[in-house]
This record gives sequence, C-alpha cells and structure tokens, in this order.
Amino acid sequence: MIYFDSAASYPILPEVLSSIEEGFKSYANPSSSHIMGLALSQKVEDVRLQIADSIGALPSEVVFTSGATESNNLAIKGAVFGSGKPFSEIHLVTSQAEHKCVLNIFSYLEGLGCQVSYIKPNAEGVITLQLLEEVVTENTILVSLMHVNNELGVINPIQDIGEFCFDKKIKLHTDAAQSFGKIDIDVMDSYVDFMSLTAHKIGGPKGIGALYIQALRTSNIVPVIHGAGQEEGLRGGTLPAPLILGFGAALSSFQNSYSKINAELEATLLKGLQAKGVRCQINGANAERVKHIVSVTLPDTNPVVFMRNTERDFCLAQGSACSSKEIEPSHVLSSIGLGRDLASKTYRLSFSHETTVDDIKAFVQRVAELIE
Amino acid sequence: MIYFDSAASYPILPEVLSSIEEGFKSYANPSSSHIMGLALSQKVEDVRLQIADSIGALPSEVVFTSGATESNNLAIKGAVFGSGKPFSEIHLVTSQAEHKCVLNIFSYLEGLGCQVSYIKPNAEGVITLQLLEEVVTENTILVSLMHVNNELGVINPIQDIGEFCFDKKIKLHTDAAQSFGKIDIDVMDSYVDFMSLTAHKIGGPKGIGALYIQALRTSNIVPVIHGAGQEEGLRGGTLPAPLILGFGAALSSFQNSYSKINAELEATLLKGLQAKGVRCQINGANAERVKHIVSVTLPDTNPVVFMRNTERDFCLAQGSACSSKEIEPSHVLSSIGLGRDLASKTYRLSFSHETTVDDIKAFVQRVAELIE
Repeated sequence: MIYFDSAASYPILPEVLSSIEEGFKSYANPSSSHIMGLALSQKVEDVRLQIADSIGALPSEVVFTSGATESNNLAIKGAVFGSGKPFSEIHLVTSQAEHKCVLNIFSYLEGLGCQVSYIKPNAEGVITLQLLEEVVTENTILVSLMHVNNELGVINPIQDIGEFCFDKKIKLHTDAAQSFGKIDIDVMDSYVDFMSLTAHKIGGPKGIGALYIQALRTSNIVPVIHGAGQEEGLRGGTLPAPLILGFGAALSSFQNSYSKINAELEATLLKGLQAKGVRCQINGANAERVKHIVSVTLPDTNPVVFMRNTERDFCLAQGSACSSKEIEPSHVLSSIGLGRDLASKTYRLSFSHETTVDDIKAFVQRVAELIE
Repeated sequence: MIYFDSAASYPILPEVLSSIEEGFKSYANPSSSHIMGLALSQKVEDVRLQIADSIGALPSEVVFTSGATESNNLAIKGAVFGSGKPFSEIHLVTSQAEHKCVLNIFSYLEGLGCQVSYIKPNAEGVITLQLLEEVVTENTILVSLMHVNNELGVINPIQDIGEFCFDKKIKLHTDAAQSFGKIDIDVMDSYVDFMSLTAHKIGGPKGIGALYIQALRTSNIVPVIHGAGQEEGLRGGTLPAPLILGFGAALSSFQNSYSKINAELEATLLKGLQAKGVRCQINGANAERVKHIVSVTLPDTNPVVFMRNTERDFCLAQGSACSSKEIEPSHVLSSIGLGRDLASKTYRLSFSHETTVDDIKAFVQRVAELIE
C-alpha cells in the first residue's frame, strides 16, 4: 500500500511513538498539586515553550486544544463572542477555499446574525491582498484565512494580509494546520492574532493541537470549552500530557523528516504522465506551493473506475480527506472554477519522507493503464 | 510514591497501552475514504458500539469528544442553544457540588441571561429528588447533576431524578466521569438524556471521552466544536483513532481492575486512625458511595505542614484535583457545611487496583506522626 495522504494525516514519527509511550506511563493529572502532577506539568510547559519558540510567540500565548478544528472554533467564535458587539454590527471575512470546519463555523455565525464575506480565490486558489481589500468594511472585526490550502497546497500571503489587518485594526486568524512545521512563520512579523496548529499533520498524535492567541491574557476571548480553570480559563479539561509530549517530539523531529521529501516527486509525476500521453493539469501550478501536496486533474479518467482500481494499492484523496466520504464536488475545486466533472476527476496526492520516486512511477503506470 | 489520586486520573492499564501503541501505527485519517481510513473507521465504530452497549444506548447515540469536560459543554450548551427559546425564558438546574467545569458553564449561561438554580446538597453531599422538586419551575428545560461526586464519592439517585425529569419533560444531563465503568447505569432505565463519559478515569488515555445523546439524530443540539461533518455534524475534528482504541481497551479491562480494589481500605484507614487516637471524619459517610473515593477530615492536622511532609511519599488531593492549585477552599466541602478551616484539613484519598492495605497503614502512620 502506497500512502499518498500525508495531508490528511502524516505518518507518525518513531521518536513520537516512544515519547507517547513514555508519557502514558506518567498517569497522573498534570493539574494535581502533588509531585507526580507537578513533574508532568513541568513537561507540558516545556512543550508549550517549544511551540511558542517555533512561531516567535510567548509560551503564555499558547493554549492546548484537541486539534486544529477546535483551535479554529476557539479563535473565531471566541473573538466574535468576546467582541462585545451585537451580531448585527459584526462583519467577518473568510474565503471560499477554507477548510470545511471554518466554513461551518462562519455559517453558524451567520445564523446568529453576523455578516460574512466569502472571498473567491484567484484561479490558482490564492487569496491575494487585493481580494481582501475589496471586501473589508468598517464593521470588519476578524479575517480568517488559511496559511496553506489543504487541497491545493498553495500558500496565501499571510504577511501582507497581516500588515493590512494590523493597520485596519482587524484581528487576523490563520489556520496553519497544513503549514505549521513546514513553512517558517513568525507571528510577530506577520501580525497574526490567532494561529491554529495541530500535531498529527507533522508526524505527531491525533487529538492534540494548539492555538496561538496574541497577548492572550489581555485579549477578550470567550472559551468554547469552559472548564475548571486550566489554560488560563480558556480551555477546560485535563491536559492530555502524553499527547502533548508527543506533540513536542514531533516538532523536534519533523523538519528533518520533511526535508527528506524528494523535490523530484512532482516533476516525476508530470513527466511520467506526459510521457504516457496522459492529459493532466496541476491545480495551483503557478502559485507558490508546499512540496508535499499536489492536486492533479486527469480529465480522461473515469473517477469511479479509477478509485475502484487504485484503492487497494494507493491511499489518496478525491476532494479533501475530512469530507471525502461526501459525494458533493470539492468546494475548493469549485472555488477555482472547476466544474463538477473536472472536480470529480481531480486527485490529491500528498507526500511524506517515506514517499519515493518509485511510488510515483507506480502511480503513473496505473493511471496510464486505466486510461488505455 | 504511593498513589492515592485515581479519581484525578486512574493508572493506565497495560492492555490500554498496547492497544494505543498498536493504534498509533495506523496513522491514517479515519475520515479518509481509502482502505487505510476505512479500516480505522471500522475499529472506531466497534468501540462506539462497545461504549453504547455498556450503558444501554445505541451506537448512533454516542459522540466522541476530548473528555468529560467537553462532553459537559456539548450537552449543556448544546441543549440550551438548541432549545430555540430566548435565554430570559430558560431556567436550568444544577447543584453547588458539581465539578467546577459544570459550574463555569452555568455561570456563562447566566451571563447570557438564563436563570440557574444551584441546589445545595444535603449534609452527606447528595442531591435528593426532594431537593430537586423544590426548585424546578415551568421554565426548567435542563437539569444537570453528576452521578458520583468527585470529591466525596457519594452517589446521586439518578434513576429517581430521571423518572421525575421525564414526567416533567425536562432534559436530564449527568456527568458520569466518576461513575462510568464503576457503577452500572442504563440510560433507558434511568431516563437520562445526556451522559458525559471519559476514558482516563477508567485506566484509559487522557484526551478522549464521549457524550451519550438520547435519540441524537432527532435532538436539537448545537455543536460546541463545528467541524467538517464528523460525528453527525455534532463534533468536528479528526477522530483520534488510537485514543479511541485505548478507550475501548480500558472499558474491556477496567471492571476486572476495579473489582480488585480492596474493600478493606477504608475500614483500615478508619480503624488505624482511631487506634492511634487521631480524630477523623469521613465526609458523606452515611450516603451510598463508590469504593474508590474517601474524603477524610483530620481536624488536628496543620494542612501546610501535612502536605509538605506527605508530598514526597503520597499523591493525594486537597480539594478536587482539577482545581487543586487554587487556594480557595473546595466548593464541594463548603456546600456540605464545612468551614474554611475544616475544609483545608480535608484530604481526598482515591484508590486503584494497585492500592494495598499496607499503603493505608503507611498513611495512617504518617498522619499519627504529624499530629504528635
């Protein structure tokens, strides 16, 4: 089985496994005031500092969550509910190409009476500063734009957007699930107010993530999960210390793994398909992209036949992984102008350090066979 | 180090560790539609069925969460926000002895305009049906009462309360964090509408829990974490499959472990203290209680000296673990009439299958030394 789905969940790193196993042996509650609890709490704080350092933040600006989805909820709803403004006077900006969870959060807020602008990305799937400038109003309090698109791998110009939002006194949230650990980002330089992070996209465990909140202690954020005072009162629940240790181990080891992703993979795919005479198109090809995600449209495939004849040998995604059980065409592909037919013939391949050029060649061979 | 803090977090069971380790090797996203995703998804569904079976529910009535705190948030806020009523017409009932996270949820809802009655428990710490009957009004839409109190171990009469609420058409939520896996409960027999469950109190991993929602698909629950459609749209985020497998393994193995908790432990404690001439009082002594929690007040101890001289050898809690870093006296002990002084001289010992009679004797000896 060849795994082309690292963007849905990255293969867990060996260093992470041993760290989690070690962590699960310390079974105390890190909120307990006895020695076992305090020892665990210290290890949790070490990881908090490590995460903060990796993005240019202070440890007091990092809150642990169950993952990027929860972080997105805490940032967006937390900021809206904490703004103190009536919903009818709140304008929010996001894009049509965001992760479904973000779109669902905004849909919920629209239901409460907020106004939301959904930017249509350019043809490459990128949200440019100009597109943002066109929609902000004097009521805009929050912009939420992902750093890297999970279906296309294109990178949004977060720094330009951050500077613009800072000038306009608009809060900026970015979902960095696909970029964290892969592209350097400094939250101070980029004027980001909220950034969602997750462990399982960088070889860590599922079930743990974090949210960076600029100047957390002075920000008016309403919790999503009210608790017994943990995480400065912003996120309740017993801290899952073993997962947090695994998160730290992933952050330490991931860059080395990610650097091993062969830059030839995409070129091999393209050349191979062309050599076999297979029509293909890389979506977002002209934009800056991360190297682990390739969205390829193969107009001559029959998607049902294709998936049936590849599923035993290749793990890949049609549409985004998190909603791939749905039948609707991907909203991201729709947003860049692909119709229902071409969207259904679009496949996302996402790579890890384990992906080889031979894996790509095997895939190309299979595609060619299914078209003949 | 003797661990008397299983109520804060239970020692992880060996079967759970191996199940988690196995789980982490399957690193796919269980929402992915390829074979690796589907295989993982099937294992997740097996655990959902196992949990449902253990409480007399249907698997379609179980939603995975990050733990009991999140489950409490989803049940209480979900029901209130989903009721469709203006906040000013909503009356809610809980008790003064609930877990802090529940009290904080209700405090938040009060801030939004809901009316909340906080029942003062009887002298044993129990919420009787009569105490509930006195506070419900025609606007009451939800009652939230814990099954077992986490500081005292006393058991609330959930079945009587459930029948009453059912007759009155009031929804009943119970936080079963301390009872799940320890006391049999059938959600149909008890007319419970929402029940919060967690893995790490039964030897499972931290970071995973569940919420039972009666007739989930027809209930009007607003999600706390909006996501990409997972869990019937009620809880977003990639399902942490390895943790869920660990939850299942804990549920399979826990009863055997729990049955080994020596029923002589509390008697040994009492007799030992009396033999040494140490004044003591077990809180909730006349109520039905679980056998793993003992709340003992030792009026002749100096709590600061006591904690300093026991912390290197015994893990126990002063106040509840989750808020034990706070200096305020426990709100639970206050609710049963203990003043600041006696509350600070109250210690919670909670046992696991690893706790021995000799552990208790060592504790009694230390107490006697510190009083002399």
